[in-house]
Amino acid sequence: MPAVTAVAHPNLALVKYWGQRDLVRQLPLNDSISVNLSGATTTTTVQFDATLDEDEFELDGARPTEKASTRVSAHLEQIRALAGITAYARVWSHNSFPTGIGIASSASGFAALTLAGTRAAGLALDSRALSSLARLGSGSACRSIPHGFAEWRAGTGEESYAVQLAPPEHWDLQIVTVYFDPQPKAISSLEGHRAAPSSPFFEARLQQLGDTLATVRRAVLERDFSTLGMAVEREAISLHLIAMSSRVAEQPQLSGIYYWQPQTLALIHAVQRWRAEGLEVYFTLDAGPAVHLLCEAQNRAALLEAVGALLPTLGGRLLVSTPGMGARVVEEGEGEI
Amino acid sequence: MPAVTAVAHPNLALVKYWGQRDLVRQLPLNDSISVNLSGATTTTTVQFDATLDEDEFELDGARPTEKASTRVSAHLEQIRALAGITAYARVWSHNSFPTGIGIASSASGFAALTLAGTRAAGLALDSRALSSLARLGSGSACRSIPHGFAEWRAGTGEESYAVQLAPPEHWDLQIVTVYFDPQPKAISSLEGHRAAPSSPFFEARLQQLGDTLATVRRAVLERDFSTLGMAVEREAISLHLIAMSSRVAEQPQLSGIYYWQPQTLALIHAVQRWRAEGLEVYFTLDAGPAVHLLCEAQNRAALLEAVGALLPTLGGRLLVSTPGMGARVVEEGEGEI
Repeated sequence: MPAVTAVAHPNLALVKYWGQRDLVRQLPLNDSISVNLSGATTTTTVQFDATLDEDEFELDGARPTEKASTRVSAHLEQIRALAGITAYARVWSHNSFPTGIGIASSASGFAALTLAGTRAAGLALDSRALSSLARLGSGSACRSIPHGFAEWRAGTGEESYAVQLAPPEHWDLQIVTVYFDPQPKAISSLEGHRAAPSSPFFEARLQQLGDTLATVRRAVLERDFSTLGMAVEREAISLHLIAMSSRVAEQPQLSGIYYWQPQTLALIHAVQRWRAEGLEVYFTLDAGPAVHLLCEAQNRAALLEAVGALLPTLGGRLLVSTPGMGARVVEEGEGEI
Repeated sequence: MPAVTAVAHPNLALVKYWGQRDLVRQLPLNDSISVNLSGATTTTTVQFDATLDEDEFELDGARPTEKASTRVSAHLEQIRALAGITAYARVWSHNSFPTGIGIASSASGFAALTLAGTRAAGLALDSRALSSLARLGSGSACRSIPHGFAEWRAGTGEESYAVQLAPPEHWDLQIVTVYFDPQPKAISSLEGHRAAPSSPFFEARLQQLGDTLATVRRAVLERDFSTLGMAVEREAISLHLIAMSSRVAEQPQLSGIYYWQPQTLALIHAVQRWRAEGLEVYFTLDAGPAVHLLCEAQNRAALLEAVGALLPTLGGRLLVSTPGMGARVVEEGEGEI
């Protein structure tokens, strides 16, 4: 069977996904909106081979953890079931960016695996089906399937997928990600999702999200940066307020989930200061200490200079992105690769 | 008329006061519970003198700002009205602790001023009346009147005062305050109170406070440290979640009110780590970067050692308190002092 190589980008949520209504099928409690990050890429090759005794998975040139291998095999199992095949697969995957820094390699990873895997299995799924399938691997992976800006519809039944909101060329937003050395998270994103409804503020967040989604959707479509930025920044804070007020049943000694590090807060303050000084920059944050800074193209140099001045103290590194493509096949060949 | 000297301590809110229903009369939207901090003291002397042309106010040996003088004069005016006198007063006040570090000198200051001022004016008010009057100077000053642990009842009309929940000797809680060099706050506590109802989570906070108050009240009365600590820590986070999701009308470029500094977050993480390691410590935070650490007496040495190890990096300083006395007169004499 052919070896198929696909690439995908991680995506940055502008309106966050936080809280699941179905933990197994990765069904979210709320819609979310994202943009793919052109500056980070996962490249994955899949080849099914009837001579294999089990799935073989190599990540960045090494054997990944048992847990990661199990997730990949479970996903390949879904693909085999869809394609009606039984052969095990070889999977080679490479991330252009470090893992564990708060840029979700699971999103780009499962998006690329879904596309390469289905093609390698002889399937030709449309974007919607790919997105829905990628979601089963890792919830937010569904948003890395469409090109550019995506909206993930929570849905009410078992179906839930992301659709394109605008193509990458719609808006040359600049996204400067400041990331720090990987630190073990006390609480994983998965546990954070699970704990979210325990926050006394969770219902208020869900109620508010309708307005936030409408504002962000419109701001993306109309390229209204000021509106987008403020809504995105407040939305990011909202996710963290929920995390900080969530209770983790397994860790009763923890008063909340604190994903921020001191550097995160230093950047939150810096962004407020930059805006007060006239440099229009907004931040967003995922479930980790990394900070994503958004600005318009004409302010990129000024932002890079401002961030650069802080880096020696903060100890962070930068990744610069614009709205990225969705998952796409880059190589499709017969036989061994 | 006699010169009267009173002392009072600032108080630490265990359940916070955040949001006012009447900005002029300092009427709060919710009940709160506090403990006086023995380690910080304001000493204030008041003497009314018919030969003065205006009130004279000296704070820590210097002329205070116009704004501070105006607040003190307005408070003296209330006292003169109550006592039916017209003479201006000399006021000397001294804080044993720096101002602007997140320990409310306005609370100890207005508590001491209220007691010294009313006595110097010939009044003998009871604790309830003193508390109510102190509140008009600075809301939380009403909690520095009773000895030990106090509960401030929001009330529904124009009356609102704090009553004693337990005397200082009830519980030898240890309170280690880590404070940092004063930094100008972008948003004052007063503005924070005003902005609080703009948070989409404010209603949820108010709804939750009934439970929090009952839990903290019971934990204080029963000296149940584990219950107190966790409730107090979550309550402190709740105040800051409201602040971070508040909108400040005058500063539309600010996405929220961020009172934490990077050091605050470093201590929040340290506390979670200490507890995981078996050292039972909890934190609380007011509207500033200072962090108040709570432990039981037998853990004071271990806590001081643990905090001490962080101080060189954090750059903070320490203040150690136990539950403190309320406002009391320490000197009452005739004529000049």
